[in-house]
Amino acid sequence: MIYKYIYGESIETGAVVEATRECKQEVSVMQFVRTEEGIRLSCCMEPDDVVYGLGEQVRGMNKRGFTYISDATDDPIHTECKHSLYGGHNFLILNRAQTEKVVENRPSFGLFVDTPGRVVFDVGETKYDQLTITTDGDCVVYVILGDSLKEIAKQFRQLIGPSYIAPKWAFGYQQSRWGYACEQDIREVADNYQRCGIPLDAIYLDIDYMENYKDFTVDSGRFPDFQRLVHDMKEQGIHLVPIIDAGVKIEKGYSVYEEGVQGNYFCKEEDGKDFVGAVWPGKVHFPDVLNSKAREWFGSKYEWLMEQGIDGFWNDMNEPAIFYSENHLKTVLEEILSMKDENMDLHAFFHMRDQVVGLSNHPKDYQSFYHDMDGRKVRHDKVHNLYGCYMTRAAAEAFDKIAPDRRILLFSRSSYIGMHRYGGIWTGDNSAWWGHLLLSIQQMPALNLCGILYTGSDIGGFGCDTTEDLMMRWMEFAIFTPLMRNHAAAGTRLQELYQFEDIESFRNIVRIRYGLLPYLYSEYMKAAFQGEMYFRPLSFDYPQDSHAFQVEDQLMVGESIMIAPVYTQNARGRYVYLPEEMLMVRMKSLEEKSCRIMEKGHHYLEIALNEVVFFVRKNHMLPLAILNDSVKSTADVETSQYEWIGYADEVAEYVFYQDDGISKDYPPSREWKKVMLTKERLEENINDGAGKL
Amino acid sequence: MIYKYIYGESIETGAVVEATRECKQEVSVMQFVRTEEGIRLSCCMEPDDVVYGLGEQVRGMNKRGFTYISDATDDPIHTECKHSLYGGHNFLILNRAQTEKVVENRPSFGLFVDTPGRVVFDVGETKYDQLTITTDGDCVVYVILGDSLKEIAKQFRQLIGPSYIAPKWAFGYQQSRWGYACEQDIREVADNYQRCGIPLDAIYLDIDYMENYKDFTVDSGRFPDFQRLVHDMKEQGIHLVPIIDAGVKIEKGYSVYEEGVQGNYFCKEEDGKDFVGAVWPGKVHFPDVLNSKAREWFGSKYEWLMEQGIDGFWNDMNEPAIFYSENHLKTVLEEILSMKDENMDLHAFFHMRDQVVGLSNHPKDYQSFYHDMDGRKVRHDKVHNLYGCYMTRAAAEAFDKIAPDRRILLFSRSSYIGMHRYGGIWTGDNSAWWGHLLLSIQQMPALNLCGILYTGSDIGGFGCDTTEDLMMRWMEFAIFTPLMRNHAAAGTRLQELYQFEDIESFRNIVRIRYGLLPYLYSEYMKAAFQGEMYFRPLSFDYPQDSHAFQVEDQLMVGESIMIAPVYTQNARGRYVYLPEEMLMVRMKSLEEKSCRIMEKGHHYLEIALNEVVFFVRKNHMLPLAILNDSVKSTADVETSQYEWIGYADEVAEYVFYQDDGISKDYPPSREWKKVMLTKERLEENINDGAGKL
Repeated sequence: MIYKYIYGESIETGAVVEATRECKQEVSVMQFVRTEEGIRLSCCMEPDDVVYGLGEQVRGMNKRGFTYISDATDDPIHTECKHSLYGGHNFLILNRAQTEKVVENRPSFGLFVDTPGRVVFDVGETKYDQLTITTDGDCVVYVILGDSLKEIAKQFRQLIGPSYIAPKWAFGYQQSRWGYACEQDIREVADNYQRCGIPLDAIYLDIDYMENYKDFTVDSGRFPDFQRLVHDMKEQGIHLVPIIDAGVKIEKGYSVYEEGVQGNYFCKEEDGKDFVGAVWPGKVHFPDVLNSKAREWFGSKYEWLMEQGIDGFWNDMNEPAIFYSENHLKTVLEEILSMKDENMDLHAFFHMRDQVVGLSNHPKDYQSFYHDMDGRKVRHDKVHNLYGCYMTRAAAEAFDKIAPDRRILLFSRSSYIGMHRYGGIWTGDNSAWWGHLLLSIQQMPALNLCGILYTGSDIGGFGCDTTEDLMMRWMEFAIFTPLMRNHAAAGTRLQELYQFEDIESFRNIVRIRYGLLPYLYSEYMKAAFQGEMYFRPLSFDYPQDSHAFQVEDQLMVGESIMIAPVYTQNARGRYVYLPEEMLMVRMKSLEEKSCRIMEKGHHYLEIALNEVVFFVRKNHMLPLAILNDSVKSTADVETSQYEWIGYADEVAEYVFYQDDGISKDYPPSREWKKVMLTKERLEENINDGAGKL
Repeated sequence: MIYKYIYGESIETGAVVEATRECKQEVSVMQFVRTEEGIRLSCCMEPDDVVYGLGEQVRGMNKRGFTYISDATDDPIHTECKHSLYGGHNFLILNRAQTEKVVENRPSFGLFVDTPGRVVFDVGETKYDQLTITTDGDCVVYVILGDSLKEIAKQFRQLIGPSYIAPKWAFGYQQSRWGYACEQDIREVADNYQRCGIPLDAIYLDIDYMENYKDFTVDSGRFPDFQRLVHDMKEQGIHLVPIIDAGVKIEKGYSVYEEGVQGNYFCKEEDGKDFVGAVWPGKVHFPDVLNSKAREWFGSKYEWLMEQGIDGFWNDMNEPAIFYSENHLKTVLEEILSMKDENMDLHAFFHMRDQVVGLSNHPKDYQSFYHDMDGRKVRHDKVHNLYGCYMTRAAAEAFDKIAPDRRILLFSRSSYIGMHRYGGIWTGDNSAWWGHLLLSIQQMPALNLCGILYTGSDIGGFGCDTTEDLMMRWMEFAIFTPLMRNHAAAGTRLQELYQFEDIESFRNIVRIRYGLLPYLYSEYMKAAFQGEMYFRPLSFDYPQDSHAFQVEDQLMVGESIMIAPVYTQNARGRYVYLPEEMLMVRMKSLEEKSCRIMEKGHHYLEIALNEVVFFVRKNHMLPLAILNDSVKSTADVETSQYEWIGYADEVAEYVFYQDDGISKDYPPSREWKKVMLTKERLEENINDGAGKL
């Protein structure tokens, strides 16, 4: 049951698609107070209550013990103390522990605070037993009651509409790096992967491909025949995926700039002048994607690249990141000048340093420009969290016109709930830290809860130098994430898989991903079509198991699998909790695998550096594609030959999904296929073989 | 067996005290190459080889998979990718796994690279199987062979001399905060602890106590009668511990400054002018602590505070940290001015930002001043890692004269091996991150390996806002660290224990520390007198147990105890590995405890937020002081009444140590006491009581 509460005149975010009647009673599950700026909701939590959700944030799956702030921020240092990352994901579930001590009625509930501005979620940081949510403006609040975590989650997904579905090739392995600067760089990556026999479905074009970082341009010096390159790559099974940044370079004669100015499509200062920020291209204007005409215009610009054969994009810098604004920089420089002749004291020095460092993404800049929301002038900070979402919506709506029948790959750095209908996200500029491998494991179900299914982290880490062991462990997790992309920052150690020593193991791991594709793709589609979560904390599937609520480093993936990745340097294994008897599957390659039934409970398992381990639930199974040696991309994965892994008391069944990988519409009758296998048939694959315990 | 190799004319660091003859053969365990700057040592590692040591660095106990650089740095963001923290601890042990596969002779060895400049330890980062050590200058290398990890460690400790011993009160609980600005602040802290019945032995004075951050001054406005305050506090059992910074404020008429200039005691620029850096007091000169006269002079300055009753100090900012140098700041400001009239482009903007941020601790500054090492003019960067060590030596040598019979508390932020004879260290400006609780667990044995026994981390975290649960879990670990200090940065959440909700539990935890004191103090003394490690990775005690080498989050503490702290937010327990049968001791307070024998192997244990759990080895035991309710400090801990915890096949024995807590010399015959107890006597304390399993 969903209860909707309207507080003031909230700006429509577009997050909710399901019409819901306003509830005129008081919110029953939380205390409500009107504040000067917005509202405050609060409630008490018992020690064993668990809070899930909030999407892209730091810390564990259970969000208790910290304050999270929805305030999209381009901050690449994702340490434990960061209150905001790139998104605004204002949905949480408070799971009430049903202990004997607690006698009163304490229903678990989902809570969506729909407001485009800043929201503060103090999830027991100030007081461990207190959940307090404070908005900076008017809002609509949805309270969802349901019998289980899964059901609450599903109701929320119905409220916000169906998740984006990527083309099938986007479920293949993908390579990116900030620094591929010319055609030759791209061809070398493709050739190296091919030489090593490692399948690859996409190579990304970071900001380097553009002419002076101008959106919707390709540098013709470094990419003399871009269309040909796109075509050649596609012949090799590789899609090129260019980046699109939010800021449009101010440059006379640059058509996107000229059109934007003429069409009045850019965000404006108070006095009506186009706002000037500086990002990669230097000085830019920001398209007013909250205006429907500007959105339509900006979206239409993607067509030029699609005409070159491009069928995937990533939208970046759309918090929007601002390195500095023209006005603010001027003020700071003048201040430094005025200090110059004084004998600068320590106070002045720190002030100067703070001023210079604080130039980027400065709150005052976000208060200094405006959107024209189809007639309503709104200061940016009031709708800040919508920008990335609407930039991505601009593209998605354009794709519907440009290529109405085809799925186009699209994901974004910044997002708001609702954007999950238009594209996915990647988890931004993480680092080559073991802690960030764990973080990305923990972020996945929180993002799924918010509808964002097509997602993954930069494998190996974006910032800092990665190491071979970190890359390998990260790959062993990432073979389960829909977006499986190796990406790194300029200046860091080269981390394409062929740069390491043990290429053979990397090849095996990527091939396991391709072998798992029929399962992963089917489970993605189930999650998307049925409004379910692809990644789930164990407690969602085992709500009666109090220990399942404790497990912060294992995930359910689809209906059949549980994973327990190794995320600690130098570890030769890890502890795993099985909430029921399961079949452990160990793979060093698609060919070298062993299966063994493991009893419910706690286990310490040795897991070699180059080993993929996962667990299949009882009476479940999964298809594993049989690959030949020459598989180069998803296109080569045979869709009729499978090996089945699973085990059952009597029979197990599995419904799997097949399509052409690209069409938007599909005839459901043909595409969902049910397979049933007997205990005996499945047992043929169970052995005690190479699997050490 | 210790082999000494001399490469070039290395500057004497003072680290080694045991005369060792030079070995003229080649280093047998590593390959050796002369480089332009210094030397390079390298060797191969097998997958299961483990590297311990390197003191104060990030990452795990097993240092494999990263590059560590000895280059003392004031960097408060201790993320996984930081190559340097505050110290230069160039000792490691490579433990060679004795696997069947490996047939050739591969002895484990210890390696000390004694050189005062920069050293790079690539411990399998570039290639996982390659250890490469590169120095920036001449050096002396010591290779230590021995039959076990413990024996190698012990030989090294003999080489570098006995560790510093703190007064007994410094093993009590201590409270610090950057921000206690006046007498009233101090008295309030003391009163609040007393009101809550939480024992406390020391309150720290951070930079706020001084007059304009001038060393060896006390602000008479905010501390009108300092001597009286010191005295009053001591009456309450509380010692005041002031900070001393490396930089001496440049201020006409300030006696320390005037004496330093007149005595030629400060570090000089190339042309002989006193070098000017800026730190907390603004512009400062740095005492040339590498010059014996200057060292003697600077040390003598501590006496004035000791005359006020002070008997403990912490030396800070002695990497030395430099916010900026006068010369460098001038250059950067001029550059910014020259940009001003240009239309600053992105490149110029980033350049400006990097220049401003890079002003602090800039390598060029460290190359721009000189030491007079008793006649030899040495550029600072060549001896950079010695500065903090020699500043602390200055104080320690002065104390020997000022108070020859008494132990004075002394620890430092920056250090080099050798400084362990003069004082301890704290692990610098960590953060209120759960990851830093784990980091501090992992740093302890690495520091002990380098002789640094008196050490601990800032409990609750220095930077960022702590939370009550983090503070409580951190306390549960910190009751085992010799230095047990709660410290936080200005501007962060108040984190004195009485600021939280569950004061009762904090009181119980601190009281458990005081109950454990007889054991912890005895074990510290054994480690100090016998050259052993107080904290050890499990593998040091269980070298035949291959899983023990995997355990990165448990520690042996002294001879009887193993600890397994909880370091994960919201966790209600953790996995624990017992390398042998042990007695699990659970305590919610000194009074509420239960014991239970646990079998060897892997366990999942529930550990409540307010519960201290540790494990006693078979045939070992420990004394637990019986405290009355009114214990306010270590002085009140009765040294004759104990409860004994342990278990044995027949009898267990324990040698424990007692002294007056303050004298430097002690008559050993009286102080070491052996106690033997039978199985039956010990079993009286073993019960299955409240301890849930």
